[in-house]
Amino acid sequence: MSLTIRIINNITTNPNLFVQRTTKRPCSTSTKFHSKPIYHTNPLLPSVYKFRKMSSSSSISFSIQIKSSLIDPDGGSLVDLIVAESERANKTLEAESMPEVRLTRIDLEWVHVISEGWASPLKGFMREDEYLQSLHFNSIRMKDGSVVNMSLPIVLAIDDEAKERIGNFKDVGLVGPDGDLIAILRRIEIYKHNKEERIARTWGTIAPGLPYVEEALNPAGNWLIGGDLEVLKPIKYNDGLDHYRLSPQQLRDEFDRRRADAVFAFQLRNPVHNGHALLMNDTRRRLLEMGFKNPVLLLHPLGGFTKADDVPLDVRMEQHSKVLEDGVLDPQTTIVAIFPSPMHYAGPTEVQWHAKARINAGANFYIVGRDPAGMGHPTEKRDLYDPDHGKKVLSMAPGLEKLNILPFRVAAYDTVAKKMAFFDPSRAKDFLFISGTKMRTYARTGENPPDGFMCPGGWKVLVKYYESLQSEEVTKQLAVPSA
Amino acid sequence: MSLTIRIINNITTNPNLFVQRTTKRPCSTSTKFHSKPIYHTNPLLPSVYKFRKMSSSSSISFSIQIKSSLIDPDGGSLVDLIVAESERANKTLEAESMPEVRLTRIDLEWVHVISEGWASPLKGFMREDEYLQSLHFNSIRMKDGSVVNMSLPIVLAIDDEAKERIGNFKDVGLVGPDGDLIAILRRIEIYKHNKEERIARTWGTIAPGLPYVEEALNPAGNWLIGGDLEVLKPIKYNDGLDHYRLSPQQLRDEFDRRRADAVFAFQLRNPVHNGHALLMNDTRRRLLEMGFKNPVLLLHPLGGFTKADDVPLDVRMEQHSKVLEDGVLDPQTTIVAIFPSPMHYAGPTEVQWHAKARINAGANFYIVGRDPAGMGHPTEKRDLYDPDHGKKVLSMAPGLEKLNILPFRVAAYDTVAKKMAFFDPSRAKDFLFISGTKMRTYARTGENPPDGFMCPGGWKVLVKYYESLQSEEVTKQLAVPSA
Repeated sequence: MSLTIRIINNITTNPNLFVQRTTKRPCSTSTKFHSKPIYHTNPLLPSVYKFRKMSSSSSISFSIQIKSSLIDPDGGSLVDLIVAESERANKTLEAESMPEVRLTRIDLEWVHVISEGWASPLKGFMREDEYLQSLHFNSIRMKDGSVVNMSLPIVLAIDDEAKERIGNFKDVGLVGPDGDLIAILRRIEIYKHNKEERIARTWGTIAPGLPYVEEALNPAGNWLIGGDLEVLKPIKYNDGLDHYRLSPQQLRDEFDRRRADAVFAFQLRNPVHNGHALLMNDTRRRLLEMGFKNPVLLLHPLGGFTKADDVPLDVRMEQHSKVLEDGVLDPQTTIVAIFPSPMHYAGPTEVQWHAKARINAGANFYIVGRDPAGMGHPTEKRDLYDPDHGKKVLSMAPGLEKLNILPFRVAAYDTVAKKMAFFDPSRAKDFLFISGTKMRTYARTGENPPDGFMCPGGWKVLVKYYESLQSEEVTKQLAVPSA
Repeated sequence: MSLTIRIINNITTNPNLFVQRTTKRPCSTSTKFHSKPIYHTNPLLPSVYKFRKMSSSSSISFSIQIKSSLIDPDGGSLVDLIVAESERANKTLEAESMPEVRLTRIDLEWVHVISEGWASPLKGFMREDEYLQSLHFNSIRMKDGSVVNMSLPIVLAIDDEAKERIGNFKDVGLVGPDGDLIAILRRIEIYKHNKEERIARTWGTIAPGLPYVEEALNPAGNWLIGGDLEVLKPIKYNDGLDHYRLSPQQLRDEFDRRRADAVFAFQLRNPVHNGHALLMNDTRRRLLEMGFKNPVLLLHPLGGFTKADDVPLDVRMEQHSKVLEDGVLDPQTTIVAIFPSPMHYAGPTEVQWHAKARINAGANFYIVGRDPAGMGHPTEKRDLYDPDHGKKVLSMAPGLEKLNILPFRVAAYDTVAKKMAFFDPSRAKDFLFISGTKMRTYARTGENPPDGFMCPGGWKVLVKYYESLQSEEVTKQLAVPSA
């Protein structure tokens, strides 16, 4: 809430803010921890309307041309598959007469992703031609000969029984996990789902224990059904976070309203510590040095399926809000929104998807770190992927040539300066690497991490979450009769 | 021998042969089986010299333009890494002072492949950037932004001990399995060899029993060494077949000399039966219908590593010779040569390599059949690959846009017409599919296949081979004392 007001005040009182360099404010230690998250109002909407009004009468001028699109969506135009409200009733009626295909929660996340154009130019679940290109080439060739990146198969699996039920129908109705009619899939094509091959080519291993495979693939049917989607209404989750789920078009509109002349995206699925913040602020500094006048950060946490030991989305959103509230990131030049995709943990293959989707949302710079979308090998004591492969593969990926890849500089805790700083190999012994596991151990045991690792407001959110986990565990243990 | 003479006679006596449709001659049943193979003279060379002389003074004119290259090699020029004879002594001396890397037989086959430009524009074993692009995208982006196909990682593995021995050297000497100095690898780069990932992404499975994996990957070291090759002299095998091992440049020269205006390549690793021949002759017919005046067939058996139960190269070459001698394929419009690559049995991934290499040899049409480079799943009762995926993937593969893909029509034995014919689904019951396994069973048991399945001369070569196998087995059994 305070966040929102601060933005508006700055916009109205300081017409030069877009060309100013952001000065990092010290992390406030006096910020009171709110027991209720601050994100129950959309921090963007008020600024949107206010700014629109203001800008029309404002005399602000920019030395460089501001375009409605900093970067074209893949395929040239943003896919939008939500049916017009005027057609909704008719389409719903029509869908009710079609064979039904039941969606899992992850399938629904993909319907959401496709419907808003994150996967542009994809207009539905992949047919076999698209699937094979994705699987073998991580890209799809368009009719005009151009190539778009498409590294993850975005497919819908059905079982033998569903296939038989569909028979010769050309269209099917997609039904959500709660039984609601969600969408129509038109001009369907059903083809074999060779899970072993899909897993091997996507993950580079078929070892048991890959989270997405366990959750989504192993229980899935042996057929894939592709076709063109018509989504009956926007996908909502009613979890108090829908206002953060801005579509690529909404993000593009917002970048325009903020007069962004560069948008740099930061994909994450973890809490933001001051090392991340240092990197993001440093990126902004570099972009300003390159001559951009108003680089805007898209802080873009992934909101779909994540593995069980990742911090849940609502906790992460609360933590991110604190980071902005505490001034570690500048709310004036930062947009926080949720990326609705589920997580594959497929390393170099997945990081391409993460980057490509952000092109569609208007980002023309993408920050890539060590081992993006990586995890430990599920059965061996090593990283599943070479930690450097992600950024190498990304920088060479077909269809991503128009995106500027910004490799991550490694930040660690500088025990001398007592803050997160870019790692200096000449005095390596002064640096402390705090892994995710280490961070979780701190939070779980109630121990404070070193001063300056994370802003106190953000840290408290994590502590509270792990405390609640522990009390849940205690409750569970008490409920189990001792053997 | 008769083959060669026939070509020359036709060229000198019939200047119109290039615009004539080949008429299929009946398979001669009276051909006497030669105990010695006919391929101990190079069937190409005499025609080459003769034709050269003739053409300079000949008045033959062609209505369409004959180009030296029907299709450009990948990257624009054909790679040739054999050092000039004048430099050989110096380079050999230099190589002797470098750390040694020992090559396996398959490594040597790859040196051969790279040295002659089959993998153009690749100039040596892949460095990590090339390896990653090959593994993830089946293609490599060149500096000018163009894309070449490169679906198989062409890499050289070394073990920890070799890595340590190389230390900070920038160049190494490559030593063949027999201890001969073969080549220099310059400006080397050593990087990790994650075998699991390489196997999974190349084969789409990591099931045990993949022939190339068992033979070449499992025993290989955990490092890959990339660099630029300088090959001290042309690779020879001294197996009586070297005259069949024509380089891409030699093939291109030969196509020019034959005034080919289309070259269609047929990759194979099996004996040629009349179904194959039907297909190749039908392809020529279609090309003539398309307006080409002199389509030439490159019958191009793979000559590198194959799995143990495939028919060995020397037997196949003898069988192919018989097929031409018996007139099932027209020697005037057919060139038989050996493709020196080892076989991966990697289905849709490998078929791209097979096609790409033939571009470099000057072929602008490529015939692709059912399940190319496929095999049975090593641990499950099914094909490893969907039999249709090969041609689908090939037709969409990046970097192969300039190649015309000719999908295979399925041929089977027509029990009514008593010959191999294109399968007619409307009378499916009349057709008999004779699999490789079935064919081998016929040959092994001495039973004749149905009349018209294969020309008798070719069939006798196979029978003789399987008889020799059986007598070998008997000898072995006799040598083992009974338990």
